[in-house]
Amino acid sequence: MADTIRISVDAMGGDNGPRVAIQGARLAFKERRNISFIFHGREAELLPLLDECPELKPVSTVRHCDLVIAMDEKPSVALRKGRGNSSMWNALQSVKDGEADVAVSGGNTGALMAMATFCLRPMEGISRPAIAAIWPTLRSDIIVLDVGATVGGDARQLVDFSILGAALANALFDQESPTVGLLNVGTEEVKGLDQVKEAGRLLTASSGAGFTYRGFVEGDDIGKGTVDVVVTEGFTGNIALKTAEGTARQVGTYVRSALRANLLSRIGALLASQAMAALKRKLDPRSVNGGVFLGLNGIVIKSHGGTDEIGYKSALGLAYEMARSRLIDKIGDRVRRFPPLPATENKNSEAEGSRA
Amino acid sequence: MADTIRISVDAMGGDNGPRVAIQGARLAFKERRNISFIFHGREAELLPLLDECPELKPVSTVRHCDLVIAMDEKPSVALRKGRGNSSMWNALQSVKDGEADVAVSGGNTGALMAMATFCLRPMEGISRPAIAAIWPTLRSDIIVLDVGATVGGDARQLVDFSILGAALANALFDQESPTVGLLNVGTEEVKGLDQVKEAGRLLTASSGAGFTYRGFVEGDDIGKGTVDVVVTEGFTGNIALKTAEGTARQVGTYVRSALRANLLSRIGALLASQAMAALKRKLDPRSVNGGVFLGLNGIVIKSHGGTDEIGYKSALGLAYEMARSRLIDKIGDRVRRFPPLPATENKNSEAEGSRA
Repeated sequence: MADTIRISVDAMGGDNGPRVAIQGARLAFKERRNISFIFHGREAELLPLLDECPELKPVSTVRHCDLVIAMDEKPSVALRKGRGNSSMWNALQSVKDGEADVAVSGGNTGALMAMATFCLRPMEGISRPAIAAIWPTLRSDIIVLDVGATVGGDARQLVDFSILGAALANALFDQESPTVGLLNVGTEEVKGLDQVKEAGRLLTASSGAGFTYRGFVEGDDIGKGTVDVVVTEGFTGNIALKTAEGTARQVGTYVRSALRANLLSRIGALLASQAMAALKRKLDPRSVNGGVFLGLNGIVIKSHGGTDEIGYKSALGLAYEMARSRLIDKIGDRVRRFPPLPATENKNSEAEGSRA
Repeated sequence: MADTIRISVDAMGGDNGPRVAIQGARLAFKERRNISFIFHGREAELLPLLDECPELKPVSTVRHCDLVIAMDEKPSVALRKGRGNSSMWNALQSVKDGEADVAVSGGNTGALMAMATFCLRPMEGISRPAIAAIWPTLRSDIIVLDVGATVGGDARQLVDFSILGAALANALFDQESPTVGLLNVGTEEVKGLDQVKEAGRLLTASSGAGFTYRGFVEGDDIGKGTVDVVVTEGFTGNIALKTAEGTARQVGTYVRSALRANLLSRIGALLASQAMAALKRKLDPRSVNGGVFLGLNGIVIKSHGGTDEIGYKSALGLAYEMARSRLIDKIGDRVRRFPPLPATENKNSEAEGSRA
């Protein structure tokens, strides 16, 4: 049996309270036995929930902590109030202290990113962290980043995101040299933002250093799965992600109403129900729940705040896979393999200046 | 019978040649009799195509012109080569000269935007033009702009886009005070790019001047139809549009393979075929083909380059509606009603400086 993966859980984060985290852990443990958990949060709430899951108790530790970061707290306020004494911070601290391999939280994304950056610190050679989404496409799952850690981003950051995304694709999909595309408004060289064009030049020069750069891709290339890793800054990436989620729900609603349109279509839906149930599972956002924070000295998985125990189980499963595949070592390896960038010192110090 | 709407057509633009434009016109004329056409392009190609449509000949004029702007031409090169002597330019010139009410082209978007800006000029009070998409949502069609005219954009431009989008919503959906939302990565005040936050402040101050400002919206609000007009700059807007198109195709593919998964689902699909055909029509990108160029002294509709005659008919229908509803007058009216912006003079002159 493989080594046990130790997951540190901010059990208080999320819209639906600690039950989702504990029940999610129960489901994750059922699937993969070699996990242990540290649950950070209010003992008085967590212990009774654990009592409901006797199989989970032997592999679980509860670390009491009163303060919970609210879902609408400003990141700067959360950091000031919750540093060192909130369930969110403590979940990260367990990773920093080496008592856990990975941290999971369903809490406030901005606060979690601020705390994770402060607690775990950016990796050497990486200017800013990113959140990567695992995106189902017509070909296979791919990586899209950044989907919301940063807003704006220069060429250097886009190059960093390419290295990070390629390392994640390597860890998740076992590809030695994943293909990377830069999200842009057109595939012709002339188009797009200056920093995207500059990043394209840098990546062309260094293609082969752990990934294969494939040039610019457009929004519809994401769903096609044209490349393994789609790179963009966090504003556009977040809007692309949420627009896609909205569109998938919209088309799903159309399909459901079409199948209820008349008697024949209702009988048809009944006959096709097995296939449609498989489709529903495929489109279920809970099956790919979890954004991966990349570029820090430790792995952090952000579960969707509004998910249920099924979704939380997916986030914990993702955390498990990231830790098992030694993602951090793979990223470090790729950062070292990457050739030095032209004018790196200048750009680095600019990026350093913008760190929180 | 209503006044005749005169449509000027760049009959050579698009991937599929002039047949699509002429056949699209035949279909549009069948639906709405009070249209006349000026077709710009190569006589030797256009006249035989018109001969195939005897009903169209009495309402059509062909204006010969040899030069056709290639789909991959750089906008600056297209403008230098094609100014005054290309089918694309001449189609715009007909609007400028007052012999047509609206222009339609399926050609190179960047070149068309550059030529339209140069030929028709931005409207007084509007810093830069935008391309608006008519986006089907769960509630009703809405307007999303800019989907690709500009890349980047300051607060003043986002405010301009709000005025333009509200005028279009008024013209298309007959709403006196359409709701407007700014696309952002979160609905909390603290988030997002500086220019988006600044635009939010300006719009809050002027809500009521022809539209109702509803604050920030996120990517998934587009598909829900939360507001009538979603405003963003062209990079993000273009990526959102294409990501949504890609996702709709992706989910459509999943549905088709689910309905072919087994014998029962195939029988079910057969029984539901009428409802599924209606759904297919609903999701058909040809049914809402046409980006509206807004902010110029004249209406220009960009048809999708790869569309067929059904899609071209939709673009011509949209052109007809824009002209019939006197869109340009409505925009001018709203620009005049809008209260002067703080520091307008400065920002205006900056924007003027960036015009081609």
